[in-house]
Amino acid sequence: MVYLTRRETFNAAHRVYNNAWSEEKNKEMFGKCANKNWHGHNYQLFVTIKGKPDPDTGFIMDAKKLSDVIKREIVERFDHMNLNMDTPYFTDQQPSTENFCVVIWALIEPFITGGVLHCIRLQETENIYAEYYGEQ
Amino acid sequence: MVYLTRRETFNAAHRVYNNAWSEEKNKEMFGKCANKNWHGHNYQLFVTIKGKPDPDTGFIMDAKKLSDVIKREIVERFDHMNLNMDTPYFTDQQPSTENFCVVIWALIEPFITGGVLHCIRLQETENIYAEYYGEQ
Amino acid sequence: MVYLTRRETFNAAHRVYNNAWSEEKNKEMFGKCANKNWHGHNYQLFVTIKGKPDPDTGFIMDAKKLSDVIKREIVERFDHMNLNMDTPYFTDQQPSTENFCVVIWALIEPFITGGVLHCIRLQETENIYAEYYGEQ
Amino acid sequence: MVYLTRRETFNAAHRVYNNAWSEEKNKEMFGKCANKNWHGHNYQLFVTIKGKPDPDTGFIMDAKKLSDVIKREIVERFDHMNLNMDTPYFTDQQPSTENFCVVIWALIEPFITGGVLHCIRLQETENIYAEYYGEQ
Amino acid sequence: MVYLTRRETFNAAHRVYNNAWSEEKNKEMFGKCANKNWHGHNYQLFVTIKGKPDPDTGFIMDAKKLSDVIKREIVERFDHMNLNMDTPYFTDQQPSTENFCVVIWALIEPFITGGVLHCIRLQETENIYAEYYGEQ
Amino acid sequence: MVYLTRRETFNAAHRVYNNAWSEEKNKEMFGKCANKNWHGHNYQLFVTIKGKPDPDTGFIMDAKKLSDVIKREIVERFDHMNLNMDTPYFTDQQPSTENFCVVIWALIEPFITGGVLHCIRLQETENIYAEYYGEQ
Repeated sequence: MVYLTRRETFNAAHRVYNNAWSEEKNKEMFGKCANKNWHGHNYQLFVTIKGKPDPDTGFIMDAKKLSDVIKREIVERFDHMNLNMDTPYFTDQQPSTENFCVVIWALIEPFITGGVLHCIRLQETENIYAEYYGEQ
Repeated sequence: MVYLTRRETFNAAHRVYNNAWSEEKNKEMFGKCANKNWHGHNYQLFVTIKGKPDPDTGFIMDAKKLSDVIKREIVERFDHMNLNMDTPYFTDQQPSTENFCVVIWALIEPFITGGVLHCIRLQETENIYAEYYGEQ
Repeated sequence: MVYLTRRETFNAAHRVYNNAWSEEKNKEMFGKCANKNWHGHNYQLFVTIKGKPDPDTGFIMDAKKLSDVIKREIVERFDHMNLNMDTPYFTDQQPSTENFCVVIWALIEPFITGGVLHCIRLQETENIYAEYYGEQ
Repeated sequence: MVYLTRRETFNAAHRVYNNAWSEEKNKEMFGKCANKNWHGHNYQLFVTIKGKPDPDTGFIMDAKKLSDVIKREIVERFDHMNLNMDTPYFTDQQPSTENFCVVIWALIEPFITGGVLHCIRLQETENIYAEYYGEQ
Repeated sequence: MVYLTRRETFNAAHRVYNNAWSEEKNKEMFGKCANKNWHGHNYQLFVTIKGKPDPDTGFIMDAKKLSDVIKREIVERFDHMNLNMDTPYFTDQQPSTENFCVVIWALIEPFITGGVLHCIRLQETENIYAEYYGEQ
Repeated sequence: MVYLTRRETFNAAHRVYNNAWSEEKNKEMFGKCANKNWHGHNYQLFVTIKGKPDPDTGFIMDAKKLSDVIKREIVERFDHMNLNMDTPYFTDQQPSTENFCVVIWALIEPFITGGVLHCIRLQETENIYAEYYGEQ
């Protein structure tokens, strides 16, 4: 078993805000992350798959094909978007790095061939990242 | 003459959109950067000053004091903000990396002591940055 | 189960030297790391916790609160300190990256809420880091 | 159990090309990676060992000695070499990042002392890396 | 005057070898860089232009258009190529980082609009880069 | 004229403390940087030379030879040392990043061949660096 990781990047706006709470409680709980008019990040996404390298190609899954999947399923959907307003994934949950990882796993997992999806790592800033290894 | 550079970081949302143009022309000129609901970046700001190190301290300007100035004048103003909506600096000009550098220069320059401001470098993504050295 | 990692940085001096050994044996075993008058590093600390994101916040533990814990328990204790002289943790063991990870785990673990501590990763130089996952 | 990782770097040329296939199929499958006259990479190698820190040294294995092993067994063999032409490891398999990890594991594993080899991570570009944890 | 920098990356093989010299002198002068069967690098290219931001766009030159120029003129020409064998630029001069910068300047300069080309910076490894500011 | 930069790294301990001042004034001016028992940094040194590439080699100065000079003159002198106690350069001036740049310039400048020394850049932390271009 070998693991292969491919990185892609995208930029998006978001806001962490719980509509069931008062403005005050949102400020208390989320601080600047609840600011009304959004803020944004340069996201770095690392997708790790695992499997046996194919004897003909030496690849688990061609890193170029894996890149194509990530670009089509994730970058096209989220790049230069507002996570709260432009996508359907964060209407019932916060667009936190943690939740975003789980969303990305579900979107990419059906398209992994040659191996299986092992980990979604999403870096939000140089100081914060989340990882999801699927339901276990 | 020695140069000292201090880095600080902040996150913000923005949109590049010219109100004098049609929706179509904006899309043609700015592509995804004109998306309606904003996107955002992790900005890295590098402030460079120049001067002679003080014989008593060895510092041009204490890097901690320089950090305090940058945090008070720039990070407090822009961190987790929408550059277009929450600040007065981009109503008559685009919040491009180029223009943002010039805005930052004007905000920081009055507070540099010990030396003089030499350069504002603003990194918008890992692939794009702008620099401004003042009017010359 | 999702994993969240927060990075903090600090600078410290240390020396690897075994008092039970001769000067010669220390030099032979530790080389420059045993130099008499200390040397130092810019440490990067990565603290990883795991848990289920809270439905209200989307967070396992608020990254800001996790940052506060790391700053209070680790950065305040070790930043700009001499690990051997200024702290009680390395009188009976070497201030190696490996041992330092275990020390940090014990100091942070009681204050993790929402999830549990998963990993302490400490980067000593760009070429060396250690990780500790607790007693297992 | 603590984990220690040491990074080393080297540069090499390679080409991914399956001699059992036609030129057309190689181009279709491997794209530019099959270009006739080679291309190359700055490889970053991360070797992770695990074990209990020695009470006298605080080390699992002295990072300097681990570095010496990696330099002697890997950097000397592969630095400024053509993986396909100058080494015997890729005559029956492709010099993919995945296969290269397995080759490096076998070369380094016999020389790890104090602990055991845990992981070989090989970064081929800033966007691609592979990991191998041995046969399990 | 504001400066804008755009980064692009590519991978290539090369060899530094002077045909007018003996094998021994090449080894003595160039060491491993003269190895017969090539080696390679992940090149990072930083192209800096200078000019006045356009009042309508806020851009000196649209970073996307600058990226398109770099990809068409440089990445297409050199990515996954052998600098010595596959390109006409290094038949009468060595493919050193220094010379490569001058070659890239000449290829990109005619296509810069809005501002003028200011600097070509080419990073060959994490430890070596060259810069060229044109004939002055 | 082309510029070539070579990076080397070393680790050292230091303390910023003015003996002509009281303990209180030192704390007030230097904060944690004046802590009694030293702290330290992973220094990154970037040495830039400028000149015309030699027609035979394509090099201004062979980057390997430049590396040898930096290692002999700087790394050997300062690596794993206490800047205040183990070196004669900071008895009459503070071991600030600014002053350290000027010291390094004087030590390296006599050994640059093929071109001339252009800049010493010394990175003390990821947030602070100084540059010196010689007396002008």
